[in-house]
Amino acid sequence: MNIRFYNARILTMEQGAGLIQGELWTKGERICYVGPAREADQTVWDEQIDCRGNVLMPGFKNAHTHSGMTAMRSFADDMPLQEWLNTKIFPLEARMTEQDNYDLTKLAILEYLTTGVTGIFDMYLSPKDIARACIDMGMRCVLVSGLNRFGPSVEEMEKRYLSLNGMHPLIAYRMGVHAEYTCDRALLEEVSALIHKYQAPLFTHLSETELETRECLERWGMTPPQFFDSLGLFDFGGGGYHCVYFTQEDMDLFAKKGLHIVTNPGSNTKLASGIAPVGRFLEKGINVAIGTDGPSSNNCLDMFREMFLVTGLAKLLQKDAAAVDAYEVLKMATVNGARAMGLSEADVLAEGKYADLIMIDLHQPNMQPLNNITKNIVYSGSKQNVKLTMINGRILYQDGEFRNGVDSEAIYAKANEIIARLAG
Amino acid sequence: MNIRFYNARILTMEQGAGLIQGELWTKGERICYVGPAREADQTVWDEQIDCRGNVLMPGFKNAHTHSGMTAMRSFADDMPLQEWLNTKIFPLEARMTEQDNYDLTKLAILEYLTTGVTGIFDMYLSPKDIARACIDMGMRCVLVSGLNRFGPSVEEMEKRYLSLNGMHPLIAYRMGVHAEYTCDRALLEEVSALIHKYQAPLFTHLSETELETRECLERWGMTPPQFFDSLGLFDFGGGGYHCVYFTQEDMDLFAKKGLHIVTNPGSNTKLASGIAPVGRFLEKGINVAIGTDGPSSNNCLDMFREMFLVTGLAKLLQKDAAAVDAYEVLKMATVNGARAMGLSEADVLAEGKYADLIMIDLHQPNMQPLNNITKNIVYSGSKQNVKLTMINGRILYQDGEFRNGVDSEAIYAKANEIIARLAG
Repeated sequence: MNIRFYNARILTMEQGAGLIQGELWTKGERICYVGPAREADQTVWDEQIDCRGNVLMPGFKNAHTHSGMTAMRSFADDMPLQEWLNTKIFPLEARMTEQDNYDLTKLAILEYLTTGVTGIFDMYLSPKDIARACIDMGMRCVLVSGLNRFGPSVEEMEKRYLSLNGMHPLIAYRMGVHAEYTCDRALLEEVSALIHKYQAPLFTHLSETELETRECLERWGMTPPQFFDSLGLFDFGGGGYHCVYFTQEDMDLFAKKGLHIVTNPGSNTKLASGIAPVGRFLEKGINVAIGTDGPSSNNCLDMFREMFLVTGLAKLLQKDAAAVDAYEVLKMATVNGARAMGLSEADVLAEGKYADLIMIDLHQPNMQPLNNITKNIVYSGSKQNVKLTMINGRILYQDGEFRNGVDSEAIYAKANEIIARLAG
Repeated sequence: MNIRFYNARILTMEQGAGLIQGELWTKGERICYVGPAREADQTVWDEQIDCRGNVLMPGFKNAHTHSGMTAMRSFADDMPLQEWLNTKIFPLEARMTEQDNYDLTKLAILEYLTTGVTGIFDMYLSPKDIARACIDMGMRCVLVSGLNRFGPSVEEMEKRYLSLNGMHPLIAYRMGVHAEYTCDRALLEEVSALIHKYQAPLFTHLSETELETRECLERWGMTPPQFFDSLGLFDFGGGGYHCVYFTQEDMDLFAKKGLHIVTNPGSNTKLASGIAPVGRFLEKGINVAIGTDGPSSNNCLDMFREMFLVTGLAKLLQKDAAAVDAYEVLKMATVNGARAMGLSEADVLAEGKYADLIMIDLHQPNMQPLNNITKNIVYSGSKQNVKLTMINGRILYQDGEFRNGVDSEAIYAKANEIIARLAG
C-alpha cells in the first residue's frame, strides 16, 4: 500500500525538528517521504488522506504491559500488590490456557489501537500465543520473558529466544525475569549464564514496592538493582519496570550502564505502590519510557492517562509545577520507548523508518485553541483524539472503527466467557 | 420531546439501587419512568433509542470550573499557581470582553458534552454572558460570584443574585468570593452582611496552596476556613473549592456546618499544589464533589481523568489501595456534585427528576469484560465511552456529534482569534 497523508502538521519527534507543515508518504511498511507538500505521480497512491491540519506523530510505545490480563480487569481491585497477586491473580492464571492468552491479548490490542499504541513490550504467559495474536491483529510486539520459579525453565527461555526472534517482522523477544521476589538465586545465576552466552539485555520488574525493596535488602543486603547487577544480569543492558523505590546508587548504576527505566504511574497509583522519582531519573540522563502495566492493575491501557500522570506525579513529588514538561513526556511515550524496546526503526517519523504512526484530531474542543499543540496533547489530550493508528504501513484503526478485519464483539464475548470459566 | 431508552443497564445512583435492567422514558425536560421493560403506546414517542445493553446514568456535575478560561489552555503551563495567576492570567483577563467570555464558554460547553457533564458550577467574569452561552447551548449552570477586591462590587453581586436566579430554568446563581488572598477584610464583612440578608450559602477557593494557608495564618491567626467562619460567611452553608491544606479543625468545622468540599485533583496536580485528603473528608461525613477547575490550570475538562485522580491520589496519600473506592467516586461526580450545587432535581435517575443523563458505551475494548461496570467506568473509562449526553430532556451530543445545532468549527476559530488578540 502507498498512502499519502497531506495537509498535516507533523511532529516527527526528531531532535529539534519541531512541527512540520506538509506531507507524509508511506510505501509498504515504511515511510518514504516527510516534508513540505510536493508533486507526486497521482497514479501511485492506494489511498490519499486529507489530514485537515491534524497532527501526525509516531505511535506510542507501551513499554510495559501484560496484555493477556484483560480478563481480570475490574475483577479484583482496591487491594495492595502482593495480596492481589497471591490471592486473586496467580490462582486464576494457573487455570488460563494458551488459547485464552491469545484471545485475551486480542482484546488488549483493540484497546491499544484506540489509544494510539503502535508497539508493546509484553511480559506474559505463553509468548508464542501473544505473538500469534499480534501477527493476526497487525500489532508490533517485543515479547519479554517473565521467568520465575514456577516457569518457564531457563532452557525453555533459550528456546523461545532462538525461535521467536526473527519469526515475523512484527515480533521480537527479549530475555527477562519476573522479579527478584519470585526467583531463587540459583535460578537467577542460570539466567545470568544465558545472558552472557548471548550477550543479551535483561528486563525485570524492579523496586516496584517498598516491601519488595525492603525484603530484598534483608535477603541480600542489596537493593534489587544492585543484587541483579551483582549477578551480572545487567552486563549487556536491559532495565527495569516500575523502579519506584530507587536509591541514588540505583540511579547511578542505571546511568552508568545505560539501563532503561519504564515507569508505570497508573498502576503504581492504583495499587498505592508509590511515585517513581522520574524527574531525578531524567536529571541523571537515564532513558525513561512509559508503560501502562497490565489491565488488571491499571485498569486501562490508555497512554494519555499515563502521560498526564507521569508529569502530574512528578510535579507533585517535586512540588514544582515546571517538573518534567510536556515535550519530555511525549518523548518518553514515543522515542524513549522505542529505544528501551530496541525498535530503532520505529522511533521517529523520517524517511526509511517503519510507518508506525498516529493522527491526533485537533478538531475537537479539548484541543482548542492551538496555543501549544504539544502541551494540548499531553495536558488535555485523550484517546478520543486518536483519529487513526497505523502500524507497519497498515491503517488498523480510523475514526473509531477497527480496520484490521476483526470482529470486536466476538472478542468481547470471548473475554467474558473466559473470565466466567476461570473464576467459576 | 418524549424519548424512550430501552434495552439499557440503568445506574440510577439512588442509594442501594444497584444496576437496573430496563427502560427509561423522558417527557419534556423530566424523566417519567425508570424500570423494567413495559408496554407503552407506541404513538407517543418522538424518538426510541436501543441502548444495546449500555449504561444510562446521571450526567456528571463539574462542581468547580472557570469555563471562559479556554482561551488560555496551554498558554502558560509549568508554573506555580500564584506566579501563573499574577503574570499570565490576570493581565489577559483584564483585556477580555464580555463577548469573549460568551464565546469562550461555548468552547468549554462543547468539551463538557463530550465528557458527559450535564451541570457546571461556574465562577468567572461576567456571569450573564456565561448564562447566555449556557442557555444558547442547553447546558445547566449554577453561576457563582468570584468577587474580589478588583470587582464586582457587593452591590453588583446582589443585583446579579436577584436578576440571574430565576432568569431561566437552566440557570441559578450563588454568592461567592474568589479567595481570602484576593479580598480585604472589610469587603468580606460586607459580603457577610449580604449573606445574612438573604440567608444564602457562600462558596470560595479555599486552602488551595500551602502559601495561601500560611499567609492567611500570618494575617489573621486563623486558617482560611476558620477566618471565613469567624466572619459569619458560612452561617448559611456553602463551602470551598480545592481544600488541599485542611486541618483536623477545618474538617470538623465543615462537618458540623454541613459545608461542601469540591476537590480538583487535576488542577492541584498540574500546578503542584498538593493532594487533598479526600479519604479523611469522607470519614468525617463531609459531602465531597468533583470539579475540573478551569481549562488553563488543568488543562482539560475531563471528568474521567478527575475521577481516576480522586481515587488514585487518595490511594497514594493513604498508602492504601482500598482507599476511596469506585462507587464512592461515581457518587462524588454525580449525586454529591448536585447536592453541593443545590440541584436536588438533577441528582439521580428517577421519575420526576430532570432528564440530565448520559449513556456509557460498553461496546468498547476498555469496558470489557463486564466484571464490574462501576469499576470499569471509574478505573478504565474515558470520555470516548460517552455515547450520549442529555440535559433537561434534550440530546445535545450523540456518537461524537453535537446535536445542539452549533457550528463547532466556528467556535474553535473564534477561540483562536480571541487569544491572538488578547496575547497580541
